[in-house]
Amino acid sequence: MPATDVYEPTPLQPGTLRVIPIGGLGEIGRNMTAYEYEGKILIVDCGVLFPEEHQPGVDLILPDFAPIRDRLDDIVAVVLTHGHEDHIGAVPYLLRLRDDIPLVGSNLTLALVEAKLKEHRIKPYTHIVHEGQIEKLGPFETEFVAVNHSIPDALAVAIRTPAGLVLHTGDFKMDQLPLDERITDLRAFARLGEEGVDLFLPDSTNADVPGFTPLERDIGPVLENVIAKAKRRVIVASFSSHVHRVQQVLDAASRNGRQVALIGRSMIRNMGIAAELGYLRVPDDVLIDAKKAMKLPDEKVVFMSTGSQGEPMAVLARMANLDHQIEVGEGDTVILASSLIPGNENAVYRVINGLTKLGAKVVHKGNAKVHVSGHAAAGELLYCYNILQPRNVLPVHGEARHLTASAALAVETGVPELNTFIGENGIVLDLKDGLANVVGQLDLGYVYVDGSTVGEITDADLKDRRILAEEGFISIFVAIDKQTGRVIVGPEIQSRGFAEDEAVFDDVKPKIVAALSEAAQNGTRDQHGFAQVVRRTVGRWVNTQHRRRPMIVPVVIEA
Amino acid sequence: MPATDVYEPTPLQPGTLRVIPIGGLGEIGRNMTAYEYEGKILIVDCGVLFPEEHQPGVDLILPDFAPIRDRLDDIVAVVLTHGHEDHIGAVPYLLRLRDDIPLVGSNLTLALVEAKLKEHRIKPYTHIVHEGQIEKLGPFETEFVAVNHSIPDALAVAIRTPAGLVLHTGDFKMDQLPLDERITDLRAFARLGEEGVDLFLPDSTNADVPGFTPLERDIGPVLENVIAKAKRRVIVASFSSHVHRVQQVLDAASRNGRQVALIGRSMIRNMGIAAELGYLRVPDDVLIDAKKAMKLPDEKVVFMSTGSQGEPMAVLARMANLDHQIEVGEGDTVILASSLIPGNENAVYRVINGLTKLGAKVVHKGNAKVHVSGHAAAGELLYCYNILQPRNVLPVHGEARHLTASAALAVETGVPELNTFIGENGIVLDLKDGLANVVGQLDLGYVYVDGSTVGEITDADLKDRRILAEEGFISIFVAIDKQTGRVIVGPEIQSRGFAEDEAVFDDVKPKIVAALSEAAQNGTRDQHGFAQVVRRTVGRWVNTQHRRRPMIVPVVIEA
Repeated sequence: MPATDVYEPTPLQPGTLRVIPIGGLGEIGRNMTAYEYEGKILIVDCGVLFPEEHQPGVDLILPDFAPIRDRLDDIVAVVLTHGHEDHIGAVPYLLRLRDDIPLVGSNLTLALVEAKLKEHRIKPYTHIVHEGQIEKLGPFETEFVAVNHSIPDALAVAIRTPAGLVLHTGDFKMDQLPLDERITDLRAFARLGEEGVDLFLPDSTNADVPGFTPLERDIGPVLENVIAKAKRRVIVASFSSHVHRVQQVLDAASRNGRQVALIGRSMIRNMGIAAELGYLRVPDDVLIDAKKAMKLPDEKVVFMSTGSQGEPMAVLARMANLDHQIEVGEGDTVILASSLIPGNENAVYRVINGLTKLGAKVVHKGNAKVHVSGHAAAGELLYCYNILQPRNVLPVHGEARHLTASAALAVETGVPELNTFIGENGIVLDLKDGLANVVGQLDLGYVYVDGSTVGEITDADLKDRRILAEEGFISIFVAIDKQTGRVIVGPEIQSRGFAEDEAVFDDVKPKIVAALSEAAQNGTRDQHGFAQVVRRTVGRWVNTQHRRRPMIVPVVIEA
Repeated sequence: MPATDVYEPTPLQPGTLRVIPIGGLGEIGRNMTAYEYEGKILIVDCGVLFPEEHQPGVDLILPDFAPIRDRLDDIVAVVLTHGHEDHIGAVPYLLRLRDDIPLVGSNLTLALVEAKLKEHRIKPYTHIVHEGQIEKLGPFETEFVAVNHSIPDALAVAIRTPAGLVLHTGDFKMDQLPLDERITDLRAFARLGEEGVDLFLPDSTNADVPGFTPLERDIGPVLENVIAKAKRRVIVASFSSHVHRVQQVLDAASRNGRQVALIGRSMIRNMGIAAELGYLRVPDDVLIDAKKAMKLPDEKVVFMSTGSQGEPMAVLARMANLDHQIEVGEGDTVILASSLIPGNENAVYRVINGLTKLGAKVVHKGNAKVHVSGHAAAGELLYCYNILQPRNVLPVHGEARHLTASAALAVETGVPELNTFIGENGIVLDLKDGLANVVGQLDLGYVYVDGSTVGEITDADLKDRRILAEEGFISIFVAIDKQTGRVIVGPEIQSRGFAEDEAVFDDVKPKIVAALSEAAQNGTRDQHGFAQVVRRTVGRWVNTQHRRRPMIVPVVIEA
């Protein structure tokens, strides 16, 4: 991907609002935006990004905190729009830097982030807000607006400073008949539009999807129909935070005389929180403990689990491998009530094939209407652009293709093209008197979490890992007399991922010995020089003989 | 995936036809089936499978030739149904074992396989057949039937022996208005059905797709419309063997006053063959050399390339990276006129995002009707099952979910469930007097091509590669006195993909020294024992300190 030119932002002028998207531009994930006014910083969201296949072994990717790392004391609050990982997942890593940054969000959002922080042994300062509420956070007057999404209690946030009015949607869609009757508050959008929105930051994930996202409640009858027809056990897999999807499964099960066992740690934890706070209405006697559920007759039970993305360690993949106490068999029905996140296809199809071979009927997005997206499609975004008539637009939450599509929609509704900004993470946008200008571009990177390490794994390590994955390695140890280049110990050759049979190296060992001696004769004396000789000798041999390019790791010791 | 029980087949009885699918069951790729009768073997197709992300570094996967490896002289011919890689790609590897096995297929199919074999410096024995032709191949009477697919000149093959009549479709669909007017010959299917099909092996790739595959010719107007509206250059990417798709691009370009440059070695080679044999009709003056095309005005040119699957080294990905002489810019139009093969999503979206950032408009399957599948969907398969009324069905060419869906369609048309066989590679099916029985299950593996090696890379190597990719490695060299365990040289520690900073190992070196000395005191004397001590010491340290599990490669030498 061509890199954007990096340049230092101009100094922030008084009375000007600075906006820096730290994550979420050019990617779906690690959403985080910093707003600065008169020396104070307000952060909206702080999420993680999940790695792709070219980032092997990485657990999570964090936003690059560089723009705020030296300004931690200036942060007045972190506003969290909703409780999804790509919006709250990096909060623990931010609070490790300063643990008393106040967290502001809805009841459910804060409950979910607190449960997460508990695992990191952090007890945060939290402040619950509701839709319609106005809250002064330092110099920022924030107003919270109800929005509808695939998790309850999501909020958009309007940010007022003397520099202007900003509307930041967070994730949203405009389901007009949501299960909890909490619609995206278009009246509030209209009122803000009347007031004059100077900058609009809309969720652009589905901006390239024509039309409208279907209703969540259209899924209920499909689920109910599949469950009603099932003769034996039913297993439903979805996201562990999708309260409304689980609600529909509980209702459908209840109406079909089945009990539901929640399976998987995150599913049990999140639904416990949702039920306790009243977001999940559990019909009487529907929930049952997994152990008891396994003793129920097959036609009386539904297992509700995670693993809908084919994650190898999650419940569903283990079931497909017969590596779970719930043994899927002939006549069982498995429903994948979720999206298929790009990149997970092979993993998901492996799970579907495994379950099919065990005799299960697998119902998924590809053959039944068991999922709808949580994001506004192009048709919905047009409503927003028209009712808001924003002066400036900075599409967020999307890859380049999504941001570009969202900006094009803005232009179609009359926003001047010059006032739409398709940016990358680190773009610095200053706003004053209704005018927005790009005044800088920071160089932000990826921060990888791997095991207990944060930021220690670099892009260079990942490049090494990709080479290792493609080709394996050959390590060569040799101890030599540095005057003569004579080999005293070795060459000892180890390899992994290259070839099973170590005898293949018998060929190259005498070549190494000869090359070292020749190098010494030609005046090589230093360790590095001898190591290069070994690398070249083995590299040439392996390329000629095997047409391969494994990583070559020589260790030469002078004895 | 649960492994199927392997068992030796019963001896083949006289007058009985044995069918062994060697590849293509449980996967999309490396299609190959062996038919044996009275000591002679007929092979249908010999293709490759492309690796998935859990098979890093592998170039190709071949069928496991084990069932025929010791029977090469009994092979009477290889029938090739059509010229796609998953049906012809492994032919060079089979001919390396015996280069005079006759290849039988249509004109285009054999031309493509000959071009491929030329690269392997093999000149094969070929025999061209046409639809309607009956050909005696050893004890097998074969009859060839025209079928429609995403490459011209595809053939199904009916195989008659005294044991019964088999129909093997190869890949096909039933486009009723194909560009070349060569439809799947349902009259021939009807005639074979009247005669009595004892075993039917249908392409099952799209058996789980409801309805009918749309017409290829529906794409033409869409392409033409996009090209007509384009203000600057147009780049179309598709598969390099998709003659009819290229035909539609040539026609659309010609009607819009544009010339077309073919880009990429395989595209140029295949279209050269197709044009020479008359399968591609090139409008006058439409084709132009790439170098000349680059000098044409932007609105006068179409580049037709490969790389529609996001392959990093292919033309399109390089264009997206500005790493190709054709520089994509503002206002250019890129059309991905192809399917999105599962597993390639992230790579393809990376390319789309890159092109979008360069200012191109990207038209693809997700936002326009620029691709249709080459395989029969469920509705079409029902026509086949009904017109053939086969006694037995062995669905081929599909993953478990596809084979299961195909068998279910057979059952819906009246084939008894007991007569449908959902198998894995190596299933042994004997046919006589209209009765088919499974009589064995061979244990067939994956044969990996990596560089110039075939079969040297094993599943154990791939497991190592996956660990290396996820975690990297730490190699530790140490030379010790084996009596005292005293370290004489080292510990020298090298790592890749683990951490950039080698200073992290300062911590563990004294632990290694101490552990070796303690082991010697406790009686350890052998190299293997000392190596285990090093492995355990480093493993425990890295797990406790870093919560990681890199591969640990100790080398202990006794000095």
